[in-house]
Amino acid sequence: MATRARGSGLLGELSAEFVGTMILILIGVGVVAQVAAGGDLTDPKGGLGGHDSIAWAWGLGVTLGVYVAARLSGAHLNPAVTLTLAVFKGFSWKKVLPYSIAQTLGAFVAALVVRWNYSEILGHADPGHTIKTQTVFSTLPGNGSLTAGVHEWGAFRDQVIGTAILLILILAITDVLNTAPGANLGPFIVGLIVVAIGMAYGANAGYAINPARDLGPRLASYLTGYGSAWRDQWGNLYFWVPIVGPLVGGVLGGVLYKYLISRFLPGAEPEPPGRVPASETASEV
Amino acid sequence: MATRARGSGLLGELSAEFVGTMILILIGVGVVAQVAAGGDLTDPKGGLGGHDSIAWAWGLGVTLGVYVAARLSGAHLNPAVTLTLAVFKGFSWKKVLPYSIAQTLGAFVAALVVRWNYSEILGHADPGHTIKTQTVFSTLPGNGSLTAGVHEWGAFRDQVIGTAILLILILAITDVLNTAPGANLGPFIVGLIVVAIGMAYGANAGYAINPARDLGPRLASYLTGYGSAWRDQWGNLYFWVPIVGPLVGGVLGGVLYKYLISRFLPGAEPEPPGRVPASETASEV
Amino acid sequence: MATRARGSGLLGELSAEFVGTMILILIGVGVVAQVAAGGDLTDPKGGLGGHDSIAWAWGLGVTLGVYVAARLSGAHLNPAVTLTLAVFKGFSWKKVLPYSIAQTLGAFVAALVVRWNYSEILGHADPGHTIKTQTVFSTLPGNGSLTAGVHEWGAFRDQVIGTAILLILILAITDVLNTAPGANLGPFIVGLIVVAIGMAYGANAGYAINPARDLGPRLASYLTGYGSAWRDQWGNLYFWVPIVGPLVGGVLGGVLYKYLISRFLPGAEPEPPGRVPASETASEV
Amino acid sequence: MATRARGSGLLGELSAEFVGTMILILIGVGVVAQVAAGGDLTDPKGGLGGHDSIAWAWGLGVTLGVYVAARLSGAHLNPAVTLTLAVFKGFSWKKVLPYSIAQTLGAFVAALVVRWNYSEILGHADPGHTIKTQTVFSTLPGNGSLTAGVHEWGAFRDQVIGTAILLILILAITDVLNTAPGANLGPFIVGLIVVAIGMAYGANAGYAINPARDLGPRLASYLTGYGSAWRDQWGNLYFWVPIVGPLVGGVLGGVLYKYLISRFLPGAEPEPPGRVPASETASEV
Repeated sequence: MATRARGSGLLGELSAEFVGTMILILIGVGVVAQVAAGGDLTDPKGGLGGHDSIAWAWGLGVTLGVYVAARLSGAHLNPAVTLTLAVFKGFSWKKVLPYSIAQTLGAFVAALVVRWNYSEILGHADPGHTIKTQTVFSTLPGNGSLTAGVHEWGAFRDQVIGTAILLILILAITDVLNTAPGANLGPFIVGLIVVAIGMAYGANAGYAINPARDLGPRLASYLTGYGSAWRDQWGNLYFWVPIVGPLVGGVLGGVLYKYLISRFLPGAEPEPPGRVPASETASEV
Repeated sequence: MATRARGSGLLGELSAEFVGTMILILIGVGVVAQVAAGGDLTDPKGGLGGHDSIAWAWGLGVTLGVYVAARLSGAHLNPAVTLTLAVFKGFSWKKVLPYSIAQTLGAFVAALVVRWNYSEILGHADPGHTIKTQTVFSTLPGNGSLTAGVHEWGAFRDQVIGTAILLILILAITDVLNTAPGANLGPFIVGLIVVAIGMAYGANAGYAINPARDLGPRLASYLTGYGSAWRDQWGNLYFWVPIVGPLVGGVLGGVLYKYLISRFLPGAEPEPPGRVPASETASEV
Repeated sequence: MATRARGSGLLGELSAEFVGTMILILIGVGVVAQVAAGGDLTDPKGGLGGHDSIAWAWGLGVTLGVYVAARLSGAHLNPAVTLTLAVFKGFSWKKVLPYSIAQTLGAFVAALVVRWNYSEILGHADPGHTIKTQTVFSTLPGNGSLTAGVHEWGAFRDQVIGTAILLILILAITDVLNTAPGANLGPFIVGLIVVAIGMAYGANAGYAINPARDLGPRLASYLTGYGSAWRDQWGNLYFWVPIVGPLVGGVLGGVLYKYLISRFLPGAEPEPPGRVPASETASEV
Repeated sequence: MATRARGSGLLGELSAEFVGTMILILIGVGVVAQVAAGGDLTDPKGGLGGHDSIAWAWGLGVTLGVYVAARLSGAHLNPAVTLTLAVFKGFSWKKVLPYSIAQTLGAFVAALVVRWNYSEILGHADPGHTIKTQTVFSTLPGNGSLTAGVHEWGAFRDQVIGTAILLILILAITDVLNTAPGANLGPFIVGLIVVAIGMAYGANAGYAINPARDLGPRLASYLTGYGSAWRDQWGNLYFWVPIVGPLVGGVLGGVLYKYLISRFLPGAEPEPPGRVPASETASEV
């Protein structure tokens, strides 16, 4: 989402994707832990904050993670973003898998840190490490509700829609032919996308909208006592939904942006060979 | 509210108005669905978020919708804005109806997507699709309260006032002769207008302040099971209030801005013929 | 707080102060009305929003009011700001009273509009128009609490402290020799000052920190049925506290900024005669 | 975090650190006082605001304190920042102790002002000035919870993690070789770091992440009636945790930023001798 440095090499790019996604998850999984299980002297069982904190902090995690990684890697922080940029913006297909692995690894490590830091509080709120606090780490259909009636296909639909919205907006906000924010403030606006999606698309499937964000922490929780991490509240395998749904939705968002907006924009100057794609240079404006 | 691209043609402008308003409603109607009907494992009937989420997410929906559409169409996203720009800023009268239709269509399609995505949750919270969850889609006097005593004319007054505030502020913030934000951050500040109006003018009539925002989703809800969509909680025809009120209020806001602020501002350089009006070029600063 | 236009004349300046303060109060008094008295179908007596909405909306009201007035008048919107700029920044003493009157008049008119728009809802929540909803319009010691023990001198102390913080920060943020925000985003940051003060200095005296903000709406409420508007919950005359306290506090803030920060800043280039004071040109950066 | 003025001398720098940290604590300790003890007519015992206000206001306090001090001192406002800049960015070791003392003194004076301003309200909510309102001033493990099971070493771990996140992000956002915000908006983004940490790392130890922020107000509370200020809810000496933890965590964050991000960034032009370090000039971009 920002100017990629020349010459830093793949290692620097992967390190940036690792750290940027780690920051995203340190904030994002951290806020859910705090809201779900935190408390204080006057209300030792109640959480600190509520769904609004969750929506804001995930968005701020995106903003801050993008600031860390932007110059080196373009700060995708999300395999659905990486895939969509490969399909529509000339991002190198050879880097799609390495980027995705670095993102998932950053999310995994961050979730282990949160798991460790909140070990007393999670142990107090949910001694058995059950599905009750599974949503601290990974998503569930209907956020675990047994009555709302959202199952895996409803959640899949929601993940396609939510990630399509995400990618339409990322492509718009980083498109220098459109109205990209200047003064290196693109990362702030990109974070606001995730705040909005969290407030409007959080009820069906917890707005993963990012395979790395869901798989990394899910694995971390599984390895640290959450035995039911791969299944939903009815016992069905669920972990694939927030992986496949966002990948499909991201590409759908790319299609919509390309055919409904991008093709009407006045053409850019022909670019000299070797320049980074336009979508990654917004912050240079 | 931003630089309009030259040469994209009316089709591109209408596509941008369609997509921009679709984004606005995907976020805005989405957040009300989530707050009114969402829930989670610990509180399966309670909503996720509250009125503050609603106010913030509608504002963010405006910001993000404007970023998508700004370059192609100026991002009106609201027939009251389009009409006011035609009256005061030289926007082509021939385009007022096409823009308004594209906006309403974008809102209609977005509301169908939300209706589909929240079908299980809405069905669980309000199986009869009654007035109880009508406010997810369209507005009611006093937000449906039977006791507060707000009827259609009180709501009409509120819509005139709220939209007048909206247009005074849009005209101020996009006026390059005043203090328009630079660095392409006008859309962020314009979104904050709607956050403020949502927090201060939401109690009488749900702050439609936009005929497309109200009519499109109202029609979508009517076609998908909400039989009482056109009437208020006492059975009176109500849908005209959030259409006529904002159109009147927008023009009133234009009058106030013109005679209390704009006429005192030092004159701009004479513009070469054919340039877009000053109010639409704020983002070039 | 921003570039003052040359040649617009005192009438334009006063009109800008009038409209800018009107916007501030339309949002600010509006949000308290909505939180104190609004409701909806599911909770017809409860308010919409809470103290966080109040803090955010007052800050947004400042941001938006400043954007309207900045170019013409510098957007003081507050007699305590006007007085402090006269004492420390060379603002014309002859204009202090006219500016203050325009500000108070804008606040008065805006409060009448809110009073009219919320007439049904206020009449339902507090039919006698008592002290219970007096805080919609003007401030009280301890926000009307009979037990917290805050009386007029505690509230006076609080108003001096809160307004001193406000003016230290306004002087810092508009000082081009310090780190003034560019891209015409000063009004956004100035609004955040008021958000912060509302969250931290709202409990003792409702953070008027602005004589016009308090006196104008207090008068409007008195003329429309709030007979006890001039007195506090114990019957003591109170209206002078949020007038005198902010004027004293503003000047105190100016003293602190001048002697603890400003005098250490490297000197500006000598200015050509006739230029507006540095504190009013931040937005040109 | 911003351009340091040349020639202002150590006295100006220390004055700026004093005032900047004073602003931070006037807002930060103020908001906790308001939330923990404030009330109004309808709910005289309840607080005004909640954990979200606390998270936002601390972040805004950082933003505003940085704007005040940035030009003169670089606006560290935190001994953990000062130490980390000395270790990694060439900040003068001779100034580390003077800066830290000025910061702690600013926090101390600000806490006395809050203590005075909230004397009636704190006396009403907690007449004995016990641990119940100790968290207004300084932090406790698990925010004072006797059941959550967080003791000093859990809090120490949390302070190391939280401050490491803070410093990774401060170093990223102020690094002109990375994607530093322009238009002097770095202080706004830096404040958002603290909002995010407050929402995600507030449950274990109240996110001091700043020795001056904790020690200064702790001392102020001790001297004004809080006899148990130095100990936690079990009677153990605790004040050292939010001093040592942040210093360790800050340096850890510096290590992570240097080896995972900074070393991959393309080298800057060689700087002429005497220029301030790159990390302090972000706002000039």
